Amino acid sequence: MAELSLAQLHRSLDDPVLLSMNLLNDIASDHPRAVSFAAGRPYEEFFRVEQLYDYLGTFVTHLTEVMGLTDEEARRTLFQYGRTKGVIHDLVARYLETDEGITVDPDAVVVTVGSQEAMFLTLRALRASSQDVVLAVAPTYFGLTGAARLLDMPVLGVGDGDGGLDLADLERQVAAARARGQRPRALYLVPDFSNPTGVSLDLATRIALLGLAADLDLLIIEDNPYGLFQAGPATRPPTLKALDTQHQVVHVGSFAKTGLPGARVGFVVADQPVITKDGRPAGTLADQLSLIKSNVTLNTSPVAQAVIGGKLLRHGCSMAAANKREIEVYGANLRHVLAGLTARFAAGGPVTWNTPAGGFFVVLTVPFTVDDRSLRRSARDHGVIWTPMHHFHTGMSSSHQIRLSFSLLDDASIDEGLDRLTAFVTAEAQAPGRSA
Amino acid sequence: MAELSLAQLHRSLDDPVLLSMNLLNDIASDHPRAVSFAAGRPYEEFFRVEQLYDYLGTFVTHLTEVMGLTDEEARRTLFQYGRTKGVIHDLVARYLETDEGITVDPDAVVVTVGSQEAMFLTLRALRASSQDVVLAVAPTYFGLTGAARLLDMPVLGVGDGDGGLDLADLERQVAAARARGQRPRALYLVPDFSNPTGVSLDLATRIALLGLAADLDLLIIEDNPYGLFQAGPATRPPTLKALDTQHQVVHVGSFAKTGLPGARVGFVVADQPVITKDGRPAGTLADQLSLIKSNVTLNTSPVAQAVIGGKLLRHGCSMAAANKREIEVYGANLRHVLAGLTARFAAGGPVTWNTPAGGFFVVLTVPFTVDDRSLRRSARDHGVIWTPMHHFHTGMSSSHQIRLSFSLLDDASIDEGLDRLTAFVTAEAQAPGRSA
Repeated sequence: MAELSLAQLHRSLDDPVLLSMNLLNDIASDHPRAVSFAAGRPYEEFFRVEQLYDYLGTFVTHLTEVMGLTDEEARRTLFQYGRTKGVIHDLVARYLETDEGITVDPDAVVVTVGSQEAMFLTLRALRASSQDVVLAVAPTYFGLTGAARLLDMPVLGVGDGDGGLDLADLERQVAAARARGQRPRALYLVPDFSNPTGVSLDLATRIALLGLAADLDLLIIEDNPYGLFQAGPATRPPTLKALDTQHQVVHVGSFAKTGLPGARVGFVVADQPVITKDGRPAGTLADQLSLIKSNVTLNTSPVAQAVIGGKLLRHGCSMAAANKREIEVYGANLRHVLAGLTARFAAGGPVTWNTPAGGFFVVLTVPFTVDDRSLRRSARDHGVIWTPMHHFHTGMSSSHQIRLSFSLLDDASIDEGLDRLTAFVTAEAQAPGRSA
Repeated sequence: MAELSLAQLHRSLDDPVLLSMNLLNDIASDHPRAVSFAAGRPYEEFFRVEQLYDYLGTFVTHLTEVMGLTDEEARRTLFQYGRTKGVIHDLVARYLETDEGITVDPDAVVVTVGSQEAMFLTLRALRASSQDVVLAVAPTYFGLTGAARLLDMPVLGVGDGDGGLDLADLERQVAAARARGQRPRALYLVPDFSNPTGVSLDLATRIALLGLAADLDLLIIEDNPYGLFQAGPATRPPTLKALDTQHQVVHVGSFAKTGLPGARVGFVVADQPVITKDGRPAGTLADQLSLIKSNVTLNTSPVAQAVIGGKLLRHGCSMAAANKREIEVYGANLRHVLAGLTARFAAGGPVTWNTPAGGFFVVLTVPFTVDDRSLRRSARDHGVIWTPMHHFHTGMSSSHQIRLSFSLLDDASIDEGLDRLTAFVTAEAQAPGRSA
């Protein structure tokens, strides 16, 4: 009988990074009645099956009435194999202009199977030899680290400092890597309401980062799943791509949070010019990512793209407009979590947390070591789950931090969850041998 | 300005294999009025947008009325992030039982973004070190070769002999690879109505292959996009997976031809047991492919899966039943192409062709060298396009063969296309310096 040993399969399959998601899902499914601060999923109370029909119909009408396609051509656009770079690239460009102030040639957009494929394609292109490495602000979303593992590409952590990015550490890490003979190709970060910390870069740091990246000849991979989820009326600074005048930024976007996760539609803007080995123009990096994509997934489902395209069209290509109600929910939930923490943990005490200006996440720091066993105790004894922060730090098996996600909850479940979390924290802090 | 040289990007981006598809698409789009024997797309005259609504609704009803989900749970299944291995795995297993006589645990199925992702995940798992290579019956579908290029995995060609596979050559290639210090992991082939040749393996060869693969400790990657398209009433032999009693076969399937290409839904059956480095059970290869998938595309769009699931449910989980009309079209087109060739080229003459029993393709052999320039002349001077066979032979820039695809045509366009093809062949055979 054909039996395979992990020793004969790709090494990533034995790597804690790839196992993180499974482990966390297993704990969640072992405790279905726990209050979950774990899932980074969008609010789902407004989902209706009929929306899918409406979005598909809206997109088809757009193809025939605005784009001038015949009925047969419109059907073919949805049903047949399609353009590798996507069939809603023009709508994605209009969305970026409308919501993000990013002006981009639609031909520099590659529509992908979520932002995960966008990151994977980008890293595949950049990992040309065993010297090539990617830098990532730590703690780091494990989708990036996982994609790098599949490509045997080292990920070098860069400190997040007080404001989300330690520029001096970036410079140090690049210099140290080069001294080791490595070739740093790009810095990955989530500048707006980061996963996992919720922190955003201020404008001065963004501008300084763009200058430093140009000096260091480093691309920036800007991942922006949460940018529209500002809590309250304050304005956020422009994205790195909106500030980018030198093609330094590869911008990765997702419609999983603003459209619907079940469409699995994301995109990458990669307008970097590419030249052949003998110096002739060879299109843009987007064209190269498209070549890679044609051998990974061939196309992003045109049916799924049509669903997102229809949702964009229904709201003037503004996902901010399409998510007006959801954005209010996320903001209210963030305020409710922060107020709830203040009510439950004494100021100046050993339990602290940060105060993001939006997004899905808050980070709690506790006076004891948090690992996967802590999470199991929390789930089993207290009925509340969350994400241990060590999963976002490669190679660490514990930390003193917890990521709380609040995007899927309502006030009552936040209150109940925080009560249970308080009981867990109290029990852990009092348990012998667990305090820091 | 950030400018990237191909010298600093992954080497596959400069590889003829990855450029094949673009080159062929460019020629096709330069000649939109040419009759196309090039596109391997399913027949599209029966597509209707309303089918999408029907399929989605049918799947939702199945979730609530048969599977017992609440409306909220059903909505969540379509709209939210889903199970990495898919949400229609049980329906895929029923389809395999109904149409292919393959009995499989639904948990050993991974639903993928087309068969392309299935091949990519499988090769990623098997490419553990620089010694690992994959064998492929040549000529080879370039989706397999392209996926291997992205993983820096060598593809060793195995002769197709007279009947679609030269078993003695397989044995020789494995021995030679091992003598070179390489580790052959699997043999890739399309046993039914192969792309590009249309040829099928007979039952004796299938049984002999399974025995030889077990002796050689070699997995078989069976790609089966065309199996249901038998022309006429004859029965075809069972798939390799249906004959597999020892988990020797990884079975890759696609709903692009039988469902609709625009859903981008395929799957892989990988029931091989896996053990850890110290010998403990670690699930199946499907579980490992799922881990990889979670870092490439995360999930296959549940909306797209629901479309395919609904189509399956509408036809008792039989794609043979769902494609009754299309199967008649493909069979009639095959007969029409073969009769048309017989009417146009003299028996015993220098132009010959094979006679597949089904599928989408016929191979024509001509008395002159065929390369991409020949195709351009055919498109420009004669208004007919097709696929030069050298694209399926790695490293070859010409051959004497042409792949004719007929899945998208009707009788009149086949007649017109064959007239044009005859004019092209006549002109090329008479041109100085082009004859063999």
